[in-house]
Amino acid sequence: MRHFFDPDGIMVIGASSNPEKIGYVVLESLKNSYRGRICPINPKGGEILGLKVYESMEDAPQCDMAVIVLPASKVPDAVERFGRHGGKAAVVISGGFKELGGKGAEYEDEMVRKAREYGVRIIGPNCIGVLDTTTGVDTFFQPRYAMLRPEKGSVSIVTQSGAVGIIALESLAKSGVGIDKFISYGNKADVNEIDALRYLMDDDATKVIGMYIEGLDRGREFLDVLRDVSKKKPVVVIKAGMTAHGARAAKSHTGSLASDGRVFIGALRQHGAIVADDLENFLDLLNFLSLQGLPEGGRTIMVTNGAGPCVLTADWIGRSPVVRLGHLSYETRKRIEEKLPDFVNVDNPVDLTGSATPEWYDKALDEIEKDDTIDVIIAALTLQDEGLSGSWEELLNILPGRKKPLLALASGGPFTEKVSLELQRAGIPVIPFPRRVVATIEKAVEYRRWLEKQSI
Amino acid sequence: MRHFFDPDGIMVIGASSNPEKIGYVVLESLKNSYRGRICPINPKGGEILGLKVYESMEDAPQCDMAVIVLPASKVPDAVERFGRHGGKAAVVISGGFKELGGKGAEYEDEMVRKAREYGVRIIGPNCIGVLDTTTGVDTFFQPRYAMLRPEKGSVSIVTQSGAVGIIALESLAKSGVGIDKFISYGNKADVNEIDALRYLMDDDATKVIGMYIEGLDRGREFLDVLRDVSKKKPVVVIKAGMTAHGARAAKSHTGSLASDGRVFIGALRQHGAIVADDLENFLDLLNFLSLQGLPEGGRTIMVTNGAGPCVLTADWIGRSPVVRLGHLSYETRKRIEEKLPDFVNVDNPVDLTGSATPEWYDKALDEIEKDDTIDVIIAALTLQDEGLSGSWEELLNILPGRKKPLLALASGGPFTEKVSLELQRAGIPVIPFPRRVVATIEKAVEYRRWLEKQSI
Repeated sequence: MRHFFDPDGIMVIGASSNPEKIGYVVLESLKNSYRGRICPINPKGGEILGLKVYESMEDAPQCDMAVIVLPASKVPDAVERFGRHGGKAAVVISGGFKELGGKGAEYEDEMVRKAREYGVRIIGPNCIGVLDTTTGVDTFFQPRYAMLRPEKGSVSIVTQSGAVGIIALESLAKSGVGIDKFISYGNKADVNEIDALRYLMDDDATKVIGMYIEGLDRGREFLDVLRDVSKKKPVVVIKAGMTAHGARAAKSHTGSLASDGRVFIGALRQHGAIVADDLENFLDLLNFLSLQGLPEGGRTIMVTNGAGPCVLTADWIGRSPVVRLGHLSYETRKRIEEKLPDFVNVDNPVDLTGSATPEWYDKALDEIEKDDTIDVIIAALTLQDEGLSGSWEELLNILPGRKKPLLALASGGPFTEKVSLELQRAGIPVIPFPRRVVATIEKAVEYRRWLEKQSI
Repeated sequence: MRHFFDPDGIMVIGASSNPEKIGYVVLESLKNSYRGRICPINPKGGEILGLKVYESMEDAPQCDMAVIVLPASKVPDAVERFGRHGGKAAVVISGGFKELGGKGAEYEDEMVRKAREYGVRIIGPNCIGVLDTTTGVDTFFQPRYAMLRPEKGSVSIVTQSGAVGIIALESLAKSGVGIDKFISYGNKADVNEIDALRYLMDDDATKVIGMYIEGLDRGREFLDVLRDVSKKKPVVVIKAGMTAHGARAAKSHTGSLASDGRVFIGALRQHGAIVADDLENFLDLLNFLSLQGLPEGGRTIMVTNGAGPCVLTADWIGRSPVVRLGHLSYETRKRIEEKLPDFVNVDNPVDLTGSATPEWYDKALDEIEKDDTIDVIIAALTLQDEGLSGSWEELLNILPGRKKPLLALASGGPFTEKVSLELQRAGIPVIPFPRRVVATIEKAVEYRRWLEKQSI
């Protein structure tokens, strides 16, 4: 598996000089970030993007890894020759295999046989492949102008669907959530979610794992590995094909047979997975868990300069079986009241009013973080208000490093997005909507409870 | 009410030369967009932002409207003098009234007495006031660098909470959803949600109304007006203070007593309101209803170049009591299959695969829109893929103007956001996540069913 992320040399088998072809874009993606040897292979030879093109694999220097973008019928042979030439890991981007049935399924079986025979591991086919922000491996055929690449970070993603992977990766990148590794495994002819999970379990750079799953073939084995990994680091799962409708769509997509939704979700939870409610919740959890610790419980306090969003948040707290409105101790309240103007309303939310400056948040948080009755803090920020917009930089010092997990609730336009990005970089997860904030806390608390049960 | 949106002249009572003061920012907001006469009032006189400052109201030319940013204790007298000088409508931005109780409540009562005596209508206090994209009235104390103003459009918003109003307005502005009028009424000492709703009912520029409500004082009357309005145009409501937790937070926020959540929601729905599930759903509905017609039913077809997000969407369809997976007729399927390559999978979703170009969408949509078994179309777009990213402009001609309501599902980074904005401007609502797409369709269909019942 290591050769997929940190290979000594990468071949692009089926490289193209036509910028509209996948065989060009993949080469461009690699050239933009991979610092090792890149060897484009194309019988026509010549030069693409300033790189010497080899007419055959055998002419090229040995490489650990290959990205294969040939038509399905030509892939089995390419895998054999790549293996004979010392290759160890191949990402097969091309489609036209098992997902089409018929001849395609035959090509896939033959490719796997060749791979086993010549000792090549395969990711794909029918996938977008691998990204590693440390080594710069980037096999995406999505051009950079159309798809933002993430900064380095501690979240790794494993996905059956390339399209969902792209949404996840780019949404996180846009919000400033850093990524370590990304694996899109498509038809999983060889490497599957179990291999990926096992590899990431011992990968120190990965702190949080996110998985999109449609179907599983070896459920029992997966659950066992899942439990082992979940004891070490959080695994956030989004499971598609949960309802009969979804299962049908999944079947025609990746040929996966989805098991009964609720039973399966129950099993995932029992084995430690944090099962996301939806795609937003999946992204928010990866964000939160990569930056903040797990709350000891669900008692939540809100601090705000605009109470409306907190009323909506309180509604979602009221609907949650896990998250609760925290009640500050009498002493904490008194101390906050002493430090702040009379019209500040110290309840839940602590309503600093529209006049609030970052300093007011600081004073309130200094007291709140010492209060044993509180497990999590929501800093609700109307960043558009002059009191915050004029001195938002101070928030970068005031919000991070609190003794309790803290997340910010803020949404708006370009200015709010700019400030949110800076807050993220300072270690504060920013979540734009009330429901999503509460769902994030809920799942994080549930995971902590699961962990506590394991150590009994 | 008209004088709030199209006044002949606006006074800013309490104008300030200090850019950190509300009395400055409000003046700046008006100066940037209002094309009528602006008269800053401040005993110090002089000039602010190039505008002559009048030392007293009486020195200034008569104005229909005033924005008052004085301390609460001084507001009743200002309202009297403004009324005596011919003023008709005052937006009171200042806080420090009923929401604080005690003296504040007395100021508010006195202000209302004066307003009635001298024939002045009041919006506020404790609010952010009014925006009208036709006349340029803009009383916001959120500076422009921190808060994007919306383009002209057909959505009008009425909100009790300024902070929620800001989120709504800026989120819509950022997505390219146009606004006509905005009213933040805060403590609603005089103008309340009933007045606002009545006014917008007969306002031709307003096609869709969005309301954020915490509590209602005259519930029966509100429901009657709501029914009348809902027969003419959709009213999307987000109700806060739904749970006991939320209700408590609402009480300390605007002093509103929230009624029992479920009963109240039931009554709202019976009277035609489209009750949003959450803030995202509220925004998505305003977006969709301002651009597309109401679906005749819930039978939905997905067309995609990346099936993963459609599997998630199918799951949400499976959970909806209203939205269903449509089944294309045999004839439609056959015609699509004839026009497109073999590997295209014509099911639901119609999976055009990662190779799809806008032209493929065009061919599929030409057939789908003629099929009587389908009510709504979801165009799921992985815009990051070369097939779409390279010729995305064609989508602007291909997606709009279809015979059935159509919405796009797309999410990603800056490129996707840029294309989404252009699609919005071309009349295609773009919604970023599967759950939200299905929730939008669900509520739109429910509203249509309500309308149909009214005409029986």
